[in-house]
Order: sequence, then structure tokens, then C-alpha cells
Amino acid sequence: MPRFHHVALIGKYQTTVSGTTASSSREVMEEIAHFLERQGCEVSLEAETAANTGMTHYNVLDADAIGARCDLGLVVGGDGTMLGIGRRLARHGTPLIGINQGRLGFVTDIPLGDYQATLTPMLQGQYEEDSRPLMQARVMRDGECVFEALAMNDVVVARGATASMVELRVEVDGHFVANQRADGLIVASPTGSTAYSLSAGGPMLHPSVGGWVLVPIAPHTLSNRPIVLPDSTEIAIELVGGRDISANFDMQSLTSLLHGDRILVRRSAHCVRFLHPRGWNYFATLRKKLRWNEGGS
Amino acid sequence: MPRFHHVALIGKYQTTVSGTTASSSREVMEEIAHFLERQGCEVSLEAETAANTGMTHYNVLDADAIGARCDLGLVVGGDGTMLGIGRRLARHGTPLIGINQGRLGFVTDIPLGDYQATLTPMLQGQYEEDSRPLMQARVMRDGECVFEALAMNDVVVARGATASMVELRVEVDGHFVANQRADGLIVASPTGSTAYSLSAGGPMLHPSVGGWVLVPIAPHTLSNRPIVLPDSTEIAIELVGGRDISANFDMQSLTSLLHGDRILVRRSAHCVRFLHPRGWNYFATLRKKLRWNEGGS
Amino acid sequence: MPRFHHVALIGKYQTTVSGTTASSSREVMEEIAHFLERQGCEVSLEAETAANTGMTHYNVLDADAIGARCDLGLVVGGDGTMLGIGRRLARHGTPLIGINQGRLGFVTDIPLGDYQATLTPMLQGQYEEDSRPLMQARVMRDGECVFEALAMNDVVVARGATASMVELRVEVDGHFVANQRADGLIVASPTGSTAYSLSAGGPMLHPSVGGWVLVPIAPHTLSNRPIVLPDSTEIAIELVGGRDISANFDMQSLTSLLHGDRILVRRSAHCVRFLHPRGWNYFATLRKKLRWNEGGS
Amino acid sequence: MPRFHHVALIGKYQTTVSGTTASSSREVMEEIAHFLERQGCEVSLEAETAANTGMTHYNVLDADAIGARCDLGLVVGGDGTMLGIGRRLARHGTPLIGINQGRLGFVTDIPLGDYQATLTPMLQGQYEEDSRPLMQARVMRDGECVFEALAMNDVVVARGATASMVELRVEVDGHFVANQRADGLIVASPTGSTAYSLSAGGPMLHPSVGGWVLVPIAPHTLSNRPIVLPDSTEIAIELVGGRDISANFDMQSLTSLLHGDRILVRRSAHCVRFLHPRGWNYFATLRKKLRWNEGGS
Repeated sequence: MPRFHHVALIGKYQTTVSGTTASSSREVMEEIAHFLERQGCEVSLEAETAANTGMTHYNVLDADAIGARCDLGLVVGGDGTMLGIGRRLARHGTPLIGINQGRLGFVTDIPLGDYQATLTPMLQGQYEEDSRPLMQARVMRDGECVFEALAMNDVVVARGATASMVELRVEVDGHFVANQRADGLIVASPTGSTAYSLSAGGPMLHPSVGGWVLVPIAPHTLSNRPIVLPDSTEIAIELVGGRDISANFDMQSLTSLLHGDRILVRRSAHCVRFLHPRGWNYFATLRKKLRWNEGGS
Repeated sequence: MPRFHHVALIGKYQTTVSGTTASSSREVMEEIAHFLERQGCEVSLEAETAANTGMTHYNVLDADAIGARCDLGLVVGGDGTMLGIGRRLARHGTPLIGINQGRLGFVTDIPLGDYQATLTPMLQGQYEEDSRPLMQARVMRDGECVFEALAMNDVVVARGATASMVELRVEVDGHFVANQRADGLIVASPTGSTAYSLSAGGPMLHPSVGGWVLVPIAPHTLSNRPIVLPDSTEIAIELVGGRDISANFDMQSLTSLLHGDRILVRRSAHCVRFLHPRGWNYFATLRKKLRWNEGGS
Repeated sequence: MPRFHHVALIGKYQTTVSGTTASSSREVMEEIAHFLERQGCEVSLEAETAANTGMTHYNVLDADAIGARCDLGLVVGGDGTMLGIGRRLARHGTPLIGINQGRLGFVTDIPLGDYQATLTPMLQGQYEEDSRPLMQARVMRDGECVFEALAMNDVVVARGATASMVELRVEVDGHFVANQRADGLIVASPTGSTAYSLSAGGPMLHPSVGGWVLVPIAPHTLSNRPIVLPDSTEIAIELVGGRDISANFDMQSLTSLLHGDRILVRRSAHCVRFLHPRGWNYFATLRKKLRWNEGGS
Repeated sequence: MPRFHHVALIGKYQTTVSGTTASSSREVMEEIAHFLERQGCEVSLEAETAANTGMTHYNVLDADAIGARCDLGLVVGGDGTMLGIGRRLARHGTPLIGINQGRLGFVTDIPLGDYQATLTPMLQGQYEEDSRPLMQARVMRDGECVFEALAMNDVVVARGATASMVELRVEVDGHFVANQRADGLIVASPTGSTAYSLSAGGPMLHPSVGGWVLVPIAPHTLSNRPIVLPDSTEIAIELVGGRDISANFDMQSLTSLLHGDRILVRRSAHCVRFLHPRGWNYFATLRKKLRWNEGGS
């Protein structure tokens, strides 16, 4: 008898430009669904996945219903898909396993080719659990909350394409930190520290570090360097100058921000739970993704 | 008798937000104009400067007329003003002197407080000349040139605020360099190398280096590092991926670029000529602007 | 009646090159000692301070005796002095206050000119406490510990001057992280993150972040970027290649390391306790030391 | 009839740790020598190569004799070997071709497996020529030159392993640039800009850029950033502070430098000439060595 009784199967959200993904994906998804049934699991399909693949033999559940009824989500896709469903399942505590379709992800770490041998023991309870904090972000205007979102990777406040700079007043727990003039500012979680934040010059944060990193993008003042803050703090970013400013919460965008708007970021009460095969190790993934130790120049 | 017979006086382009700049500026400009007359120079006013200050006792000339008739431009403002008029006078070869109103610029290096003592020998021919290359940029679409501009600082191709990345194919003299996925890409001149390019991680280029620097902004591939190219090359940047992409030529913006558009950058036949007081030194300006050797941490 | 009954007075360890520091320092130290007595405190002198200043009217105590008998250390000097005595008092839990002699330090934040007004309420118990973690480092050779030290700032393993590189095998809690080829590797605490680590490209870590940052110095592989680790882990650095390698623990050096030597770093059971004036704020110190928001270029 | 009549064959300078290189290399070298003879070339052996391989059937020539008598040097080894012999042949103008034994170099770009097909047209005159500037460095003490060297990659002035910092006064053509406090300072040529300088944060310089880049290593002042200078200037680095300072010229070391010593760097009158197969392109080598466009993260 499996450790997980009811598994939700979740595919990539987007079809590709050429539109051919859907059918090949259907074949893969059906094969995986059959495998899960053979392992003794009940299988449901996430709603968009059902629509995209056209699969009809399974219960169809939206994210909330998955959270309420399933005890595992199995994602077939990339890190983006994993983070998207992770945000939505966080408050239910439903754990997730990620299968990638060719390219290793930071969190979708099981290659499709190996999935049967890898999943079999995991479904029996043989796994490593890896819990990731979530950021809860709000946008305040004139004292009212006008937008609210969860983010697993990062909250980014940035200038418009034709503006020269934003000026942002940063406070931490009510203490003034700095007025930053830059292309923008990233608040990244440990999960997000290997994504956009890394490109902008931020450090990597191990998932067990209880912190966020604040990374200025192309800062005017050269000593405005990345700073790691405890995730128990509340970070406030107030828009002081610049035009056409937007905020991004993972990939969700809010445009047309106004001077005086404040973006508040703090740790959500919920975490996202990722399950990995026994022996999984965070550093092994880093080594592969960042091509360390390959002997190149 | 002065070395320069006919001097154009050029003020800051913008009035401030509060609108109070114009009058104080008028006073300053009139004082400087009288000083120039006492030195034996004929004085004309740049057209916008005349409009902004309301000064009426002087000949008013547009940029082309200044280029045709004056043998010196005297700018009172910041680096932005200096670069703006410099671009427009370049094909005439008219030299420029820059007076700043309080904050040292990289090229507007004469403090307003000292201007009389500093300008007197310069007007007699005692100066250092500092010639800066200009970039000539064109945007090609389907083989046609749809936009053309000169830039003294930089040409920047960048993603829109809500897009995640651009993908740019870079070629140098027809040789493929790399496909860069990033927030954007800067091509900076030596003059521009201490501006936006520096914030994005680029090196400084001494004005006598015959080169441009290509600086990726937040590049996805960590080994996509700044590269300095000879300014005898033609750089082509083709838009391969991304949405809502724009190009900036100094501060002139071109939005709504399309995939397949090519931005071509090469050295203009013209240079901008800046004049500095005897003993002026590029490194002294760097030291002051970048606060080297101040003994701080 | 003061909150602190017995205060140890600690001066700068080194006299200056010219040797004139001692006497001026004596005057200052005597004035401060009298002030402490007027506040009702018993005053003792740290042994080296007594020797350097030639002050004779006070009890002289070494670091251990200070830890055993005093309930406060008052340091007059720079950050280096503060960190040095902090390491030695850590296991006693004696708190420290730092007075700087002209140049603001990250932890010696009280200007000498203000000391009376600032110290008076602090001695009555009006202060902010700021607790800093310590690293405990050991060097293992053939399974034996051949060196042991505490460090507040950083542990640095680096190549010799004429060697081209070290190769270091890094493990965290027994998990292989990477083989790093570089000039060296820094393990910095939050306190050390604004010192050498910052120069080498590391991020700042707020003192409340429970982490260390691992910063490679001039790494051969460009994707070997700084990584922040929880301070609950044990970091092992094994010497795999290179010549003439040394390890530094704050400023204490161990040279002639051998291939196969392992440097182990973990969190000490002790912390160093710094006391600051009411209203003290970490970010205000950062702003001043790093010259943020000064309006320069 | 070949374009090159007399070819010097040059092997790797060092045997490997295990000492087995010599024999395998001999086989390879003899095969290449026969190939050259079949192409109609006279073949000589560089002296150390003859000693290391034990080959006896060929004329043995030292570097100066190669320069005087041969019209091509064929190097079988890595970039280090190529740069070493390049420095010594520079004043003779003898061109070099580089064959690598498995790992692509920046300048040794012909894989051993392909060498016959690649060399055949090159020996007939079908090649691209790539000329690299050399730095001439001198160390002055009390007005006397106490050391002189050529460098193709870089001149590096650095602190000793247990010293905390050097302080270096930098001048360019007699103009003061800055006092730099850092681990050290690199002056790199375009050739060296992809070596140590890149690890320390410097930009890449295209070989046709007439410049050097000055890169501080772990600079104390965060705004001390890399600066590119025209190679027509003379750079002077004076030792102002620090202990146990050394200078490296490519891999040649000079230790025990004293305060007041001045290292002078200017462009040598000679260049090193590298020959590449037709169609060779600098950017293709960069792409491969730096793993651009591999689709990884």
C-alpha cells in the first residue's frame, strides 16, 4: 500500500508556440497516470492539465480541490510549473514531486526517463523532504491594500523600459535602510536566489537559511550591494521616484504603480513542500545547474 | 583679444519641478554673458536657453546656427546638457566648455563659483582639449533603416517592465558573438562607461581607448561578461526573443521594437570636443566622482 | 546606582608607528576612568592597556580575570580591538561597549567626543543589545586537531603570493559542494560580511541572519558565486592543490598547510555581546560606513 | 612547396607528476615531425623539447636560434607553453601555430586529432594572422632597474599570504590615478584578459583593442573598479604599504619587494604572432571556452 493514496497529476501550463506539445504530453501523462494506478494510487487531474491534454478518464480537480483531497501533487514540467502550483497548494500543505522533461530544474529534479524506478520507493515513503518558505507581498496605496500575492522566487520592483531609474526607499521593520536609485530591486527567497537574483549579482541562499536577499539591479551607488535579511522581518519598499514602475511577484505583474505606493514583503505562514528521492542533495543540483567542476575554463 | 570670438551660451534644458530655476538661472546666465563680453567675445544664446530664461538682449541661435557661426559653446548645467548639445554640434566641430552648478560632472568640470578665474586663460587659448568619439546607431527593419541617432554615452536595448527577458543575437563585423538572454545589453563609449554601464558592472574606459564596451544587464548566463571591442568594428544586435523591447540612444527612446529588428552601432565620423582648464586630468575627476582615497571603509 | 558595577577599560592593542599614541591615549583613558568612577563604577584595566599607557592607579586584569570579575568591558579603539577582546571574553558572556577615536567603526559606534552623554544612560541600563555569533575553527591533519581558534569576522584559506591558485574541496555537513580553484575562500560571519568578504564580492549579512557566507576569491569558474549557509552546519575545507597555503582566523595566521589538511568551521556555543546606545540601528551604521545616500555619483 | 621552409617543433615544458608524459609525447611529436617533413618542411626541435622527449634525429635549437633560423614555430601543448615560447620569440617575429592535446586553449586552438587536415593548407599560406601585444615591465628601486621582463598575459602585484593588504599608488603617464588598498592589482593585456583578470572581475578585451586593463583584486574601496587604459601609456605602480609583496610577470615571480619600489609597465616594441586556420574567429573560441549558448542555467 502506498504512502500516498490520492495523487494529483499536473502538467505544464503552457503549450508551446507550435502547439504540438499537447499531444506528446498527453501520451506521457497517460503513461504516468497508469503507472500511479499500478502503484495503488487514486489519480486525479489538475483542471488546466485536463483541458490542455484532453485526457478524459480521470477526476478533474482545481488547485483548491487538489489541496483538500489529494495527499500528493506530481508535476511534469519545469520549475515554473512547479512554483506556480506550489504557491496555490501551500496553504493546504500538499507535498509536490517534480519530473522534468529533459532539462534538469532546481526543483524538478527527476528525469522523465527514470521516473518509474525513482518514484516507486518515493510513493512508499522513501524520500527527502525539502520545505521552502513563501513570501507574502502586499501593495499599499493611501493606507489600503490594493494587491496581494504570494511569491516563491522573488518580488521585483523595476523601472519601465524608457525610464532612466527608479528611486526606492527601503525600510526593514520600520527602520530606514537606504534610498536606492537603480533599475530596480529584487527581494528573493532562497528558492529565488538561484534565479533572477543570481543574474543581478546576488548570492545563493541555501534553502535552510531563514532569510531573504535584497539585490539592487544596476544600482547607481556602487556600494549598494546585496544584503541578506532574516525572514522574520517585514521589508517595505516605497516608490519615491521614477516613471512607469511595475512590481512582479514571481511572474504575476502589477503595472502603473504610483509614487507613495508601498510594497510590503514578509514571510507567509505557509511553506511549499517538495519531495526528492532518497539521497537527494541540494549541492548536487547546484553543481549540475551551474556546471561547477566540469574542468572548463 | 580672445582666442574665441563668438561664444554660444547654453543653459540647462529643463526647468525644475517647482519652476523656480528659470529666474535664478537667468541671473547667472546674464552675469556670465557680461563676463564674456568683457573678455571681448561676441555672445549668442542657444534658442531653448533664451526661451527658458527669458533673456532678450542677445542673438538667439539654434544648434545648427551655433555650429555654423560660433567658435565655442559654453554650457552651464550638468553632464546631460553637455552631452545633448555635444551630439548636435559634433558635425560642426564646435568645442565646448562645461560649468556645473554645484555638483561636479564627469565633463562639466568647472565650478560656477570659480568660473571667472578659470575661464579667463581658457578664452585666451590656455586649455586642454579632450576629444570624445560618438556612436552612430541605426535600427534596421526588413533591410530598411527605420531610425537613426547619435549617442555619446550608450546604446541600450532592454526588455519591457513586465517581460522576463530579451534574447539578443550579437554580431561584430558580421561574426557571431553570442545569443544573450538578459534584461538588456549596453554598448557604451568611454564617455558612457562611467554612467549606466558602470552600474551594470562594466569597466571604465579611458577616453583615449579606441573602444566600446558591451555590457549585459543581469545576464542569464553568468559567463556573459563585459567585453571591450575596438571602435573600428560594427556591432549588430538582433532581437531574437522577448516582448515590449525598446532601444535607448543616450536618452532618446525607441519603443515597440520587433523580432528581427537589428540595431547597428559604429563609430561616427565626428567627435565631440571638450575643453578643460590647463592641468585638467581625467583621473582627478574619476577620483572625486567615485570618492576614491577618502579613507572611508 | 549603575547597572554595571565593575567595568574593565580596554585600549587599542598597538601603539602607532611613531610611538606617540601611548601618552595621548593615557590622558584619554584616565579621563574615561574618572568618568566611570563618578558614575559609581569600579574600574579595572586590561593588562596590555595598563602596560601600553603606563597607568598605575587601577587594578590590572587579564582577559580571563575580566571575564570572571567584570560585568562590562569598555573598549576605546577600533573594530579590530573590539573583535580581539570580544573573542576572548565570549565564553564569559561579558558585554562590550565600543568608543572610537575619530573614525566610526561597524561595532565601535560611539564617538569619543560624545562619550559622557552617551554612556551615562547606558551605564544605567538604557541600551540596545546586539549579539554576534562566533565561528569555531579547527585544522585537522591525519585525523588530529593541530590548531584551533575562534573567529568573529572570517576564516580565510588562501594561496601563497607566488602560487597560481589553490584547489579546495568544500563539504557542508559531509555533503560535497564543489572543488574550488581560486585565490582562496572566505567563510564570513554576519560581522565579517562587511569586511574582507565584501571586498571579494560577498553580500552583507544582517547580524540576525543565522548564517555564514562562503565567498571565493577570484574563482577560476565564473559560476562559483557566494553562497549563504545556515550557521547550524559544519563547513569542511580540504586542501587539494596549490602551494604555500595559509589559513587566517580573523588576523591569526597559520601557514605551511599541507594537502589533505581539513579546516572545519562551525558555530561556537558562545556569542559576543555588544551594547549600543538606545535608538542604535544597524542600517544607520551601514549607511554611514558605505556612504549611501550621499548624492554622489 | 610550403610557405614555411623551416619549422621548429616545441612541446610542453613540464612532464606530468607521474612522469609518463614524455614517452606518449615523443610518439606524438615524432608523428608530427614526419608529417612536416612530408609537407616539404625542414624540422628542428626546441632544446627542452628534445631533452624531455629524448628525440635525437633532429637539429636541436634554443629559442634564439629558432628565432634566427626558423620561419615558423609549431607548439604542441597548452596556452602556457604557447605564451612562454611566444615571449621568447617575439623580438624575432617568428609566427606560432598551437596544437592542443585535448582541451581547447584560447590560443592553442587546433585539436591534435585534426592536425593534418588543418595544418596542410596553413603550411601553404592559408591562415589568419592574429598579432598580440606584449607588455614590457621593469622594477625600479632607488632609480635603478632591478628586474625586467616581458609578459603576454599580465603583471600582478600582490600581498603575501599572511599580510592583510597592499597599498599601491598608481600613476598613468605621470598622472596620479589612485592609492589602491587591495589584495593586489592586475595589469592585463587583451590576451590576459580572459585569464586571471577575468576571475578577478575584469572585462574581456578583444585582441585588436589597443589597451590594457587594470583590475584590483578584492579592493577595499568598492568603487575601485576595473579601468581600461590605452596601451600607449606607461603605468607605474608604487608600493606604498603592505608586507611580503611580490610581483608576477606571467608566471615569473619576483618576491621581497620593498616600499618605494616602482613597477613600470608599457607596451613592448614587439608583438607575438599567432597563426590560425582560415575561418578562425576569436568569438568562436570565447563561446566554446566560456560555454556561452549551451542552454544551461
